[in-house]
Amino acid sequence: MGLLDAVLARGGVRTIVSDAVFVQAMLDFEAALAAAHAGTGRITGDDARAIAAACHAARYNIAELAVRAADTGTPVVPLVETLRTLVGRETADAVHLGATSQDVVDSAAMVVAKRSLVVILADLRAAAAAAAGLAAEHRSTLMPGRTLLQRAAPVTFGLKAAGWLTALDEADDGLERVSSSRLAVQLGGATGTLAAMWPNGQSVVADVAASLGLSVPVLPWHTDRTRIAELAGVLGEAAGALAKPALDVVLLAQTEVGEVREGVPGRGGSSAIPGKANPVAAVATLACARRAPGLVAELLAAGVHEHERAAGAWHAEWLPMRDLLIAVGSAAAWLRDCLEHLVVDADRMSGNLRGESPADVAEESTVVAACESLVRLALAAHEQRRSGDPA
Amino acid sequence: MGLLDAVLARGGVRTIVSDAVFVQAMLDFEAALAAAHAGTGRITGDDARAIAAACHAARYNIAELAVRAADTGTPVVPLVETLRTLVGRETADAVHLGATSQDVVDSAAMVVAKRSLVVILADLRAAAAAAAGLAAEHRSTLMPGRTLLQRAAPVTFGLKAAGWLTALDEADDGLERVSSSRLAVQLGGATGTLAAMWPNGQSVVADVAASLGLSVPVLPWHTDRTRIAELAGVLGEAAGALAKPALDVVLLAQTEVGEVREGVPGRGGSSAIPGKANPVAAVATLACARRAPGLVAELLAAGVHEHERAAGAWHAEWLPMRDLLIAVGSAAAWLRDCLEHLVVDADRMSGNLRGESPADVAEESTVVAACESLVRLALAAHEQRRSGDPA
Amino acid sequence: MGLLDAVLARGGVRTIVSDAVFVQAMLDFEAALAAAHAGTGRITGDDARAIAAACHAARYNIAELAVRAADTGTPVVPLVETLRTLVGRETADAVHLGATSQDVVDSAAMVVAKRSLVVILADLRAAAAAAAGLAAEHRSTLMPGRTLLQRAAPVTFGLKAAGWLTALDEADDGLERVSSSRLAVQLGGATGTLAAMWPNGQSVVADVAASLGLSVPVLPWHTDRTRIAELAGVLGEAAGALAKPALDVVLLAQTEVGEVREGVPGRGGSSAIPGKANPVAAVATLACARRAPGLVAELLAAGVHEHERAAGAWHAEWLPMRDLLIAVGSAAAWLRDCLEHLVVDADRMSGNLRGESPADVAEESTVVAACESLVRLALAAHEQRRSGDPA
Amino acid sequence: MGLLDAVLARGGVRTIVSDAVFVQAMLDFEAALAAAHAGTGRITGDDARAIAAACHAARYNIAELAVRAADTGTPVVPLVETLRTLVGRETADAVHLGATSQDVVDSAAMVVAKRSLVVILADLRAAAAAAAGLAAEHRSTLMPGRTLLQRAAPVTFGLKAAGWLTALDEADDGLERVSSSRLAVQLGGATGTLAAMWPNGQSVVADVAASLGLSVPVLPWHTDRTRIAELAGVLGEAAGALAKPALDVVLLAQTEVGEVREGVPGRGGSSAIPGKANPVAAVATLACARRAPGLVAELLAAGVHEHERAAGAWHAEWLPMRDLLIAVGSAAAWLRDCLEHLVVDADRMSGNLRGESPADVAEESTVVAACESLVRLALAAHEQRRSGDPA
Repeated sequence: MGLLDAVLARGGVRTIVSDAVFVQAMLDFEAALAAAHAGTGRITGDDARAIAAACHAARYNIAELAVRAADTGTPVVPLVETLRTLVGRETADAVHLGATSQDVVDSAAMVVAKRSLVVILADLRAAAAAAAGLAAEHRSTLMPGRTLLQRAAPVTFGLKAAGWLTALDEADDGLERVSSSRLAVQLGGATGTLAAMWPNGQSVVADVAASLGLSVPVLPWHTDRTRIAELAGVLGEAAGALAKPALDVVLLAQTEVGEVREGVPGRGGSSAIPGKANPVAAVATLACARRAPGLVAELLAAGVHEHERAAGAWHAEWLPMRDLLIAVGSAAAWLRDCLEHLVVDADRMSGNLRGESPADVAEESTVVAACESLVRLALAAHEQRRSGDPA
Repeated sequence: MGLLDAVLARGGVRTIVSDAVFVQAMLDFEAALAAAHAGTGRITGDDARAIAAACHAARYNIAELAVRAADTGTPVVPLVETLRTLVGRETADAVHLGATSQDVVDSAAMVVAKRSLVVILADLRAAAAAAAGLAAEHRSTLMPGRTLLQRAAPVTFGLKAAGWLTALDEADDGLERVSSSRLAVQLGGATGTLAAMWPNGQSVVADVAASLGLSVPVLPWHTDRTRIAELAGVLGEAAGALAKPALDVVLLAQTEVGEVREGVPGRGGSSAIPGKANPVAAVATLACARRAPGLVAELLAAGVHEHERAAGAWHAEWLPMRDLLIAVGSAAAWLRDCLEHLVVDADRMSGNLRGESPADVAEESTVVAACESLVRLALAAHEQRRSGDPA
Repeated sequence: MGLLDAVLARGGVRTIVSDAVFVQAMLDFEAALAAAHAGTGRITGDDARAIAAACHAARYNIAELAVRAADTGTPVVPLVETLRTLVGRETADAVHLGATSQDVVDSAAMVVAKRSLVVILADLRAAAAAAAGLAAEHRSTLMPGRTLLQRAAPVTFGLKAAGWLTALDEADDGLERVSSSRLAVQLGGATGTLAAMWPNGQSVVADVAASLGLSVPVLPWHTDRTRIAELAGVLGEAAGALAKPALDVVLLAQTEVGEVREGVPGRGGSSAIPGKANPVAAVATLACARRAPGLVAELLAAGVHEHERAAGAWHAEWLPMRDLLIAVGSAAAWLRDCLEHLVVDADRMSGNLRGESPADVAEESTVVAACESLVRLALAAHEQRRSGDPA
Repeated sequence: MGLLDAVLARGGVRTIVSDAVFVQAMLDFEAALAAAHAGTGRITGDDARAIAAACHAARYNIAELAVRAADTGTPVVPLVETLRTLVGRETADAVHLGATSQDVVDSAAMVVAKRSLVVILADLRAAAAAAAGLAAEHRSTLMPGRTLLQRAAPVTFGLKAAGWLTALDEADDGLERVSSSRLAVQLGGATGTLAAMWPNGQSVVADVAASLGLSVPVLPWHTDRTRIAELAGVLGEAAGALAKPALDVVLLAQTEVGEVREGVPGRGGSSAIPGKANPVAAVATLACARRAPGLVAELLAAGVHEHERAAGAWHAEWLPMRDLLIAVGSAAAWLRDCLEHLVVDADRMSGNLRGESPADVAEESTVVAACESLVRLALAAHEQRRSGDPA
């Protein structure tokens, strides 16, 4: 584990985007390609089985692949060479048939993104569930509303939590949509024509997609990066939805406000001030989520590719996509932790409310009624989303 | 027209996002709000009609609103004050009932975004139609494929154009989805509780949304900026889809390649070299599209709002959203122009192909067949999209 | 004045970057070029004077230049054509001699940037002076220190203001350095060789630079955009230095903290809550400064230019540079306003300090002594900077 | 070595920013702090020596520090606890005296940045030297100038290389300036007052700075992030200067242009097309440099810190700063490789020049003379820079 990973790469994504998993995903592509070719009779079933048997990441020396990647700019050439050596001379020609390096890297990246989204969605949904719980419990808990950080008309804490919930649900919709429909296999061969598999290209593409659990694209998308852009966009949206509750928690946890605190025992100390209780989970959520705008910009800027393969822009997608998945996953893991352990001080909320302005009971009952009504709507929408959810 | 607007703000968006249209959209909100309140009996029909009669931008001095906006940070306070003056003392209290400044600005911004998307989609679809025409016409026109800008296996120009088409269609899907489902009215009152309209808040929201042609949100979204993030995301995606064909055109139009040129007479000269024919439309498309990543990053970074109204982040959305709509609209208008007038030199493509490597007729016929097959798929998907298109 | 300009384009930059001023700066370049050519005997003094006489922006129709700019992608071609018409046939050939469009636009942009920096620095220095005043006055005013928004060891408000001051001074250094040494004339001709002026290129460059008040570059910098990047960098740095005090003011002005407020009468109201006093200047500072990171990213991403003139990246610099100057200038104007009128509630600071933790007088005297010592250092450094300041 | 490190993290920076080096830098800070306290008599020399003896990264379990970092949000608390355990109970109180976590992390980050800049500058200067060699050798080698990728007035390849050189030199100036004057120690204690070291704070700061080879700041800069912004700015500028030559190489190496190629044997193959020779170094340079704008935006956006320690923004700087150093260092290492092995085809340049337009010998001799003159200027400026170089 890297020195900062527990803070800035929390949750399950870090492992999913690791080199070992990525190499295995590339090998899964090679095995699926061979199986698909065997299905069309292009290679023998024995060759396909031999290839599959050699497609285990543990048999590959990642450091060596890494060094040799510098010769071509991708790790695929040394990976395929090693695979050919492993299967022996008679099967070597059946390896990587009709594919190009970008096919392997792009498809493996989609596999990794798909698995990452499962983890991200799990944490985001747990955070949403915690928000839903807070919304239900505190639907009538009055507190000061605050605009431009100045005291304004009262709200209930439940309505605030319902706002968090709705945003998380909307981010969830985007992630779910991209996961289920936009993460497609990439397979086109040297220049994306599928000519080297003619006339079986389409069926090979469909077979490989099915093996990898990915969608089938209309065309090879080697230089159509709208999928990457859309994935980046929904991750950026999710980062914002995750950061908003964390920002509110940090502000509500201020010493002078004191309306919530994070309730994980033993966390939140300081190297300089022994007794301090920092809202570590909320702070870390904010730190992780802050990566998103710049990383999304990197991915969008890298989305304009020359001709049939980009001279730099393609390579430029690899790190920001990995980092963006990590950052959003980490933010989701931290926010879940934050909201699942949030301690709400309803008395302090009430005290803050009444401290400044003498209570107007009639007005307050209207506020409560209005807030309760909105919370009901948000919870109903949340339930409906969850029940119709394919995941 | 601004000095650079014909280059960097081409198309219809510049007018739609102008101050005059924005002020009118804010007034449309006020009129719709009054009508909705009249519907619930909160104000009289006469008051609502008087308010509607005063809601014409021509009656407002934009420069004066602008100056007075500095006192509160938004132009809504002086706008509402002016409206109250226009309707007279007896109706003044019926104005802006239950609303806050952010309700007005956010709803007007959604109206402007929705109209902008209509224009952007029209140009983007015309560009896609031109790409479809090129794909169909040149489905068998062989040319060199190029990877990392090096000559690689041949493709057809039709397949290249089909790749442009598919990316444009996918960007279209995103813009269409956001336009039809995510551009919602914002109405919540001072702190988003709708308490000032209790118990009629929901029906007032629905009425105002219907009047403005916007969706009804689950909750007021004053501090849930996922809608802004999602709009930014699909605009960023569209920018990439628009830039890709432009980049290919610039590269194919290089003197040494010479496979395409822009065919608009009288355009493309130079102040230093009289006879030059620059691919102005493609260059301008690239220039406009390049704004998108940074502007999307601005919007995502501004998407984390404190409590019930942000202290800065909300204001920070206004200019980048306007600029992003302009930039993507301008890119769409330029690409449409570029592709509708593109002159393809099939002989030069063929010559470039054969210059380096002696022809392998058998291989080429396979390439053509493979490319034709893919072009058919792309065109069929395009037709299907268009036929199911609600616009 | 644009509807949002008093909020988001405050201060003097908006006018300096206007179309009229930019057109005049382009004409100043043409006049300076003619004068320089007259100095080398390339054209006559009469021609140069005739050209200078025609170089007044009021004689040009900006809207018409704008429309015609679409033919070539820049407004320079129609500008030069108009200038040639104005001076008559016999002088027409003496116009724009040896220059290319980019020379005109880049040099004019540098002139505009230089003038903008004067205004930005004036406001930033006034803000720094206000911070210095606060630092001196409150060097011993104890208040709670706050880390992660939690109460921590005490500080003095003077030290906090000294921190603002030092950051503003450091941003000032960067802006001053770029203004005095990096804003250079661009003049190279069609492809940057100065061949069309051989052998007088260098002296013509020096003359034009002197006329325009710009530096002389080692080489024409048409495709070396490090000057733009460096200007962007120091503006981005300044945005952060301006935003930090504003963020602290917003936080200290929270109802629950109440240690400062903005003291401009009649400002800070709300459309929904009559009695509210929002820290409008600080909020607007934050909103303006938030534009910087995305705009800097745009400029850096546009800084990689193909061959002897970029196909899109050059055009892509124009709007973000203009917007960045406006944004930073507006932030400086607002922060100046904020700090010059800041009302400090030392009693509330003291109350907040003692509220939580009983006073430890001995410790507090050490804190005050330590803070005073640091404030002295900051003020001394500030004085030294100002006294050595060339501006 | 990570799978993509030889491509996207080339050169020496990757190791310098590794966890092991960072932990050692944090321990160097603790040892230097103890030595400084011993100098003022605050702790004994024996304690300082015991602390120094325990400050070796090899004695710390990074994975364990990482896990425990989640409790406080930084690895400093477990690091200091471990250090206290290692030195034993009687010396434990002498550890980390008067410091806070941010002091340790910020100072270590500056140490790591300073070392990284040494490596980056070495590679960037070698690339500049290679460009200078090309400029000198080819000062008279005519080739087509190209604007908007269209053939324009001729240039010499030497002038093109001189343009690369000048931009690299200007980026060098920025990196050198920041390295020598802006990388300062951070030491302020819990809230930046130095109160816990009163009255010796300034001398302790100076001692620690001297030990670590860092500058002494006017004030503790815990919430003044202009240093980070300025470092980010010059790295972003350098990325552009590194990318420009790479872009030109990619374009000149196009099959249809063929004026340069990369000359490293055995590099540049393809998994799909055996005979291909891709300009891998230039492509990788572009890929690495493309990270910069988004990462700079991340750092600038994270540069606005609340009160005496930021709630998220501080943590948000760690990864993008590390990534930015890696990216720019990798781009420098690749460009050095590219330019040191660049093979120039002067005959092809000449052929491309004459192919389109019949030679005008008189004009060409002027172009050569003009270009030679500019190249001389650039080389002279380069020599002057190098001779005055403190490094």
